[in-house]
Amino acid sequence: MGSPTSPSSLRPPSGARDFLPREVQRREWLESQLSQVFQRYGYQRIITPTLERLETLLAGGSIQAESVLQLRDSEGTMLGLRPELTASIVRAAATRLSSGPLPLRLYYHGSVFRNSQREEGSSSGQEFFQSGVELIGAGGWLADAEILTLLADCIRSVGQGAATPFGHASEGGNGIPDWTLLLGDVSLTESLLSPIAPTAQAAVRRAIAQLDYVYLESAPLPEAARQIGSQILALRGQPSRVLPQLAQLPVPADRLRDLQQLCQVLQEQQVQVVLDLSLVQTLAYYTGIVFQAVVGGEVVGLGGRYDRLHALYSPHQAEQAGIGFTLLPDTLLRLLPPAHKPDGSGCRRLVVPLVPAGIPQALALAAQWRQSEPVELELLDRSPEEVEAYARQCRIPEVAWVQADGSFHLTTLNFN
Amino acid sequence: MGSPTSPSSLRPPSGARDFLPREVQRREWLESQLSQVFQRYGYQRIITPTLERLETLLAGGSIQAESVLQLRDSEGTMLGLRPELTASIVRAAATRLSSGPLPLRLYYHGSVFRNSQREEGSSSGQEFFQSGVELIGAGGWLADAEILTLLADCIRSVGQGAATPFGHASEGGNGIPDWTLLLGDVSLTESLLSPIAPTAQAAVRRAIAQLDYVYLESAPLPEAARQIGSQILALRGQPSRVLPQLAQLPVPADRLRDLQQLCQVLQEQQVQVVLDLSLVQTLAYYTGIVFQAVVGGEVVGLGGRYDRLHALYSPHQAEQAGIGFTLLPDTLLRLLPPAHKPDGSGCRRLVVPLVPAGIPQALALAAQWRQSEPVELELLDRSPEEVEAYARQCRIPEVAWVQADGSFHLTTLNFN
Repeated sequence: MGSPTSPSSLRPPSGARDFLPREVQRREWLESQLSQVFQRYGYQRIITPTLERLETLLAGGSIQAESVLQLRDSEGTMLGLRPELTASIVRAAATRLSSGPLPLRLYYHGSVFRNSQREEGSSSGQEFFQSGVELIGAGGWLADAEILTLLADCIRSVGQGAATPFGHASEGGNGIPDWTLLLGDVSLTESLLSPIAPTAQAAVRRAIAQLDYVYLESAPLPEAARQIGSQILALRGQPSRVLPQLAQLPVPADRLRDLQQLCQVLQEQQVQVVLDLSLVQTLAYYTGIVFQAVVGGEVVGLGGRYDRLHALYSPHQAEQAGIGFTLLPDTLLRLLPPAHKPDGSGCRRLVVPLVPAGIPQALALAAQWRQSEPVELELLDRSPEEVEAYARQCRIPEVAWVQADGSFHLTTLNFN
Repeated sequence: MGSPTSPSSLRPPSGARDFLPREVQRREWLESQLSQVFQRYGYQRIITPTLERLETLLAGGSIQAESVLQLRDSEGTMLGLRPELTASIVRAAATRLSSGPLPLRLYYHGSVFRNSQREEGSSSGQEFFQSGVELIGAGGWLADAEILTLLADCIRSVGQGAATPFGHASEGGNGIPDWTLLLGDVSLTESLLSPIAPTAQAAVRRAIAQLDYVYLESAPLPEAARQIGSQILALRGQPSRVLPQLAQLPVPADRLRDLQQLCQVLQEQQVQVVLDLSLVQTLAYYTGIVFQAVVGGEVVGLGGRYDRLHALYSPHQAEQAGIGFTLLPDTLLRLLPPAHKPDGSGCRRLVVPLVPAGIPQALALAAQWRQSEPVELELLDRSPEEVEAYARQCRIPEVAWVQADGSFHLTTLNFN
């Protein structure tokens, strides 16, 4: 045996935490709701390794090496704990899945990791859960529409279903309050920025990404650059207002028409859309629409189109369109109403051998009842009073007291 | 975007692999079978962090630091990717769960990691799946019986159920062939070894763990030590033969009676038991029974009693009995018959907009059908012939061709 441990071994590492049974039930419920929606759209689950080669994770060019938890394996290869799953899934799609029919519809549930400096008083963690989808091999606005419709169905399903497993209904039976889809299009924003000279363009792009009006007003920028930047910042709001504004600007007509059709479809599905041409995601690999699902000011899901990522992982640099999103289950669960279900294993019966000679009979009775429902067996040397107190605490409504001859009597407990 | 990647970024790291949709289905089926059995015994799932403090992982004294994939977090703490889950679960039980009623019945599904040197031609990996249970706060032979009965039910459930999800039944409807429970008891073995002087004792213990008869015969050991070692090595076989042998030896009478009762219960459940007093597990923290479930010479599950582990993680060094086992899903899946289900998303219908003006109608039709079954939407610019070929390849039996006015006709495909 080892020596007695120091107190720090009693805690999970900073930023990590244990999910106890009640929290696990909520998480499993959420994953199962999402899986059902994904499957209704024909998506299939894929499981990729937790550890990937560092170069795989960084190939897309938008993950910073410092943000990845890294280690060297016994062969000397630098590995990283995945900070997101899109890179891994596109790698798998471009290699092992490349010979199958297109499009590929894949979904995932898994842990991701981040090497985040823990700031004073912050609760930044290092292990998170993510669930999401990738649609590979389909470009165009109809594929965009499928992905956004799927995202909307996921959020609706989580909201509506929330009443069921947790034993109580929130207002209107809707666990997630109103949500908003923030929708941008990197290709439209880039075409608006294209007249600006490269150096100023980078500064304007940074300013709009950070909604930095002050910088745009005061920085030493060419007047045209300043104007374009302000124009883009103003392109935020209802589609009915922003789309006509966009139509007056020098943007590709086909991309604009695609966005109009997409907004039309989303409106028919009662999705509350806010167009935002200043939406520039942290992941630089996006090439078309980018979006965030926002609930009460918090991002619960995000994604976009990444048509240049596949070629990076393909042995022959084959291009394939790609689009996907990630949901943040930890945030969704925080926003959902808490579980009102009492603790306990959900067992309806506790089988208690009254004497040692009754143990084989108690085992046989438990085995028989377990064919139709969960049953606990009393394992400790407790008095009948202690056993009843335990059953009450665990909310097990029936206790079966087994005699040596296999006969038993049932005590029924009432809980208020 | 990043630069084109080197070929090695196209592969998962050595020892890791992708689980493609068909393999995922088998894994999810296995996990769900095991979860159902665990829950029927009143066990509840716990999820602990993938990364733990290195000192937490090593506290039990039987994990070698070199075998743990290690890294340092941004606060300078040494972390390890968990090589097994018992340490994490006992840590959680001894801290956050310590105020609840006993016993604690917990189960888990998760990845574990190993820093294994890849030998020439070997397929040693670094990421594995494990499923298992921990029963904390219950000592005695009845708790042992619950755990071994649960293990037997898990293996039976996987074997019997194997016919269902994979579309074909193996011989006798039993996917897992005969299995054997190898059962030892560390406390009995230790009491047999106790008369030997410490140095010779270590040598004899190593020899019996490795079944090294030659060493026992030829090494310079005291004659008494050699005799005891040979005696222990001979204590392998049917309980009906080994138990009477044991009764002739100087072992604690109460431990022997416990083992007799345990064997009796297992026999009543038709479990094929081989007693093996030379069974000494690699994890040194076991204190009572130790066991392996063996199928066709391969270990598919293993575990034992660890009554001294809890105190190491308890803030007040509180002792609690503990016992658990781990199943190896990767091995179980390899032994099960392969999936005969065809590839494909399981969708029954493919909805195809025949003209662009039919897209909103196609979306609405897909949404309507998705309320009762999975539906794929055609997203590519393919001819009707190409669409039909795709549907055949994916084994989607019905194709709905949608006109601009929302009317549609169905084509039914026959697969042989």
